[in-house]
Amino acid sequence: MSSISPLAPTDVPDMPVISGVKLATAAAGIRYKGRTDVLLAVMDKGTTVAGVFTKSKCPSAPVEWCRAKLGGGNARALVVNSGNANAFTGKTGRQATALTAAIAARAVGCKPQEVFLASTGVIGEPLDATKFDGVLGGLAALAAPGEWMSAARAIMTTDTFPKMATATVKLGKARVTINGMAKGSGMIAPDMATMLSFVFTDAPITAGALQSLLKAGVEDTFNAVTIDGDTSTSDTLLAFATGTAAADGAPKISRAGDPRLKAFTKAFRAVLADLAEQVARDGEGARKLVEIIIDGAVSKPSARKIAMSVANSPLVKTAIAGEDANWGRVVMAVGKAGEPANRDKLSISFNGIRVASRGARDPSYDEAEVSAAMKAPKIEIRIALGLGKGSDRVLTCDLTKEYVAINGDYRS
Amino acid sequence: MSSISPLAPTDVPDMPVISGVKLATAAAGIRYKGRTDVLLAVMDKGTTVAGVFTKSKCPSAPVEWCRAKLGGGNARALVVNSGNANAFTGKTGRQATALTAAIAARAVGCKPQEVFLASTGVIGEPLDATKFDGVLGGLAALAAPGEWMSAARAIMTTDTFPKMATATVKLGKARVTINGMAKGSGMIAPDMATMLSFVFTDAPITAGALQSLLKAGVEDTFNAVTIDGDTSTSDTLLAFATGTAAADGAPKISRAGDPRLKAFTKAFRAVLADLAEQVARDGEGARKLVEIIIDGAVSKPSARKIAMSVANSPLVKTAIAGEDANWGRVVMAVGKAGEPANRDKLSISFNGIRVASRGARDPSYDEAEVSAAMKAPKIEIRIALGLGKGSDRVLTCDLTKEYVAINGDYRS
Repeated sequence: MSSISPLAPTDVPDMPVISGVKLATAAAGIRYKGRTDVLLAVMDKGTTVAGVFTKSKCPSAPVEWCRAKLGGGNARALVVNSGNANAFTGKTGRQATALTAAIAARAVGCKPQEVFLASTGVIGEPLDATKFDGVLGGLAALAAPGEWMSAARAIMTTDTFPKMATATVKLGKARVTINGMAKGSGMIAPDMATMLSFVFTDAPITAGALQSLLKAGVEDTFNAVTIDGDTSTSDTLLAFATGTAAADGAPKISRAGDPRLKAFTKAFRAVLADLAEQVARDGEGARKLVEIIIDGAVSKPSARKIAMSVANSPLVKTAIAGEDANWGRVVMAVGKAGEPANRDKLSISFNGIRVASRGARDPSYDEAEVSAAMKAPKIEIRIALGLGKGSDRVLTCDLTKEYVAINGDYRS
Repeated sequence: MSSISPLAPTDVPDMPVISGVKLATAAAGIRYKGRTDVLLAVMDKGTTVAGVFTKSKCPSAPVEWCRAKLGGGNARALVVNSGNANAFTGKTGRQATALTAAIAARAVGCKPQEVFLASTGVIGEPLDATKFDGVLGGLAALAAPGEWMSAARAIMTTDTFPKMATATVKLGKARVTINGMAKGSGMIAPDMATMLSFVFTDAPITAGALQSLLKAGVEDTFNAVTIDGDTSTSDTLLAFATGTAAADGAPKISRAGDPRLKAFTKAFRAVLADLAEQVARDGEGARKLVEIIIDGAVSKPSARKIAMSVANSPLVKTAIAGEDANWGRVVMAVGKAGEPANRDKLSISFNGIRVASRGARDPSYDEAEVSAAMKAPKIEIRIALGLGKGSDRVLTCDLTKEYVAINGDYRS
């Protein structure tokens, strides 16, 4: 396994207990030896659920399971395994999800449709769900409120650090908590970068309002992070609201637009943003965190498309790995996005130093100054298009030889 | 400089003379030391011209020059320089193209609008066109019919071998010749992969017919090659028809659909396909030529989109570099294309060995057999979608540590 990303956060958050959520992990030997690979989260009755998933046209069996069960709006259990994605496993895969849900339902004492599932790991290998049979019953008995760190570890694949974030805010007169965990763009040895994230709160929010909140929240957080432009079959973000804070006087929220939810919405978004940034910080082989900021595009969607074109350009990403403020490649990536852009109005800066303006190299360009700035662990590329008021921001990382090594090693 | 690509063709074609075309090269010291960096092609009066260019919204000054002059339909000279792309150079860049064309026109004895230009190299550096002043006059005097190899060499940047192709076919009762050269996805030290290609023929074809021929010809050749999904500001493909074969009895062709042009059209396309494949074979750091073949898509455009999604996936390309038949990543890349695809109907084979069928691993899958096949220098990935009759084919190469090294080295 590779060493911890140099971009890992230095502080690990202290995760408070969330009333109504209990966690337990186990080593079920799905693929890995000597580490946990199953997480069971048990939620109190009345817990609502929302989810967003990969846009892949070939989603994994657990993604299809979750999509089908979201309509019910209620969740009592979440089972996550690492080591096998249960993707491209056909009928066997669908049977494995049904069996896993049945085993979990029996262990927790709920209906299978209240069980949510996520799998991450190798693709195309049948997942032996019978392995959960001896495990989930014990986990349900052991589940405890404080196991956030071990939970975040159990869902890791080639992640180099566990990813957690937390926030506490007022909802009405009560204090409510939001805890989140994620696994990022470590490749499952040796398959694909899958992003899984699970967010829990004790706030009493209906499934419909939670879904609206989640959909709005991912737009500028998880949907604004890219490692290599590849989209997993298994990307899953689930949010659970136990509603237990109602006992402390938190009002029941049934609309995402409810003004009482304002502080919560902000904190919820901050948790998602924190987790999404941690995913970028743990991009495979990443040595630099890269923020692409677009100003002056004709619209925000146009700005997003341009930002993504720059963020996914192998030539831009290798230049940053080489600490090269190669704005020529940035121009190229802007130009290939296909969105309105006028070369003669374009300005580009790296970490606050303008290198190009109005279609040519900036007259004050100083190679030594720029070179020094490029040594920083975080690189901000700001691109001003000078056309309109559309702006956006996307996070990515550099493309290093380590990325190729991690992903080019033979699957064995 | 890196050594010759292991994928380079073993045979260098013997390029015949094309009546009405003379070539000369020089070392103008634009950027490189000790090598040629300027090509002048002088064409006889009556030569027609057609061109296709980058779709970048931030094209280089020479691309804008050529686009503006194509309408005239006539060409007497082509000036190509390597080492400086004259891109993102603003007003200075436009002045440099006008000055270069004026110098070339004086040297050749034609109008500036009959001069076509292409530049490849570093972006954002002003191109000192006065350097051509002492050079082009001499080149016009020296230009000779047989200098194809030196021409193909002068336009190289980080290409590891010169790229040429030729064909001779009957047009009416005359034999006509098509000669082409290209420079590929070598990065200009240190800017971007630019594709330049120039094709010459003695066939008498009007500019309009030549344009139609070229547009149709690139669709499945140059437009079906990708190295890293990045699009240069400078991609240029120009075709010139001197028409001198009319003296040998070749009929004048004014429509691309003219039935007499059938053999020519086929040969013209073969020359483009040969050059395009050579570009893929010289992809930066490439160790494997990769052909993505899609069958059973709902349409050809849908097949192209899926093929490009697979060809541009860093995870697929690194897997091939690692000689790993990682069809899970192929499924991922099919899924992320956003085109109709049904996991349960998908079949995937690597070099003729089916590894996945109908949404799961092929029952006959033999890891040892597949591993042996992946050691070949050419990898064919065939993806059968089972939905319709749309098929397509795209060429690419693998993504190696050498790609990152070539593109991540500091620009100095």
